[in-house]
Amino acid sequence: MPAQKARTAQKEPSPSGRSLAHPDRADIRLEGVLHALSDPMRLQIVRDLAAEEGELNCSVFDLPVSKSTTTHHFRVLRESGVVRQIYRGTAKMNALRRDDLEAVFPGLLDSVLTAAALQASRLGTAS
Amino acid sequence: MPAQKARTAQKEPSPSGRSLAHPDRADIRLEGVLHALSDPMRLQIVRDLAAEEGELNCSVFDLPVSKSTTTHHFRVLRESGVVRQIYRGTAKMNALRRDDLEAVFPGLLDSVLTAAALQASRLGTAS
Repeated sequence: MPAQKARTAQKEPSPSGRSLAHPDRADIRLEGVLHALSDPMRLQIVRDLAAEEGELNCSVFDLPVSKSTTTHHFRVLRESGVVRQIYRGTAKMNALRRDDLEAVFPGLLDSVLTAAALQASRLGTAS
Repeated sequence: MPAQKARTAQKEPSPSGRSLAHPDRADIRLEGVLHALSDPMRLQIVRDLAAEEGELNCSVFDLPVSKSTTTHHFRVLRESGVVRQIYRGTAKMNALRRDDLEAVFPGLLDSVLTAAALQASRLGTAS
């Protein structure tokens, strides 16, 4: 069996050495973004991240679903290019990819956030 | 067996007497609209309708899928409040609910259409 070289090159090095796959800006697809935003829970996560304008730990999102479902939602958001997830030590931090989204689909994220805020106020739901 | 009264009251009378269920403007939900638009084929239908600015018969959409799949896509678009479908004789006509969407989610449809056009030109795909 041939010796295998350890793969040391990482596309996105992170402080803890682990990294998660993210689409490059050019690979972000409108259909994927819209699908990611079409779930009420994921839309709420995005609204929270937009309000924060920084990184948030997964654990601060108090979602009424199981941990594995929460992980799934963050994964859909990450794989569609909506959020960036970075390990910092044992914490998985999340940030909205505002600049990337604005670059590929100008105005889209803001119009969705505005629509979500309008709907929330109309329905009398939180935030 | 008790005699049943024929249901003559229709919410949305149409020229041919048949009608299809549509959500009222107030019942259109952002998540449903985003989901409807998150499918490449449905997004293309919406782009075609937007370009037409009028009614289009289902049959003019030359989609590379079966008739039943086409019917499904139009149904998702109708039930989410994105399009209005009206029978005219034997033809089922489709129109974008531009005014309704603009009233509930100002700017959303246009930003999606712009994003779709940008992506199509970037990817070198049709329209």
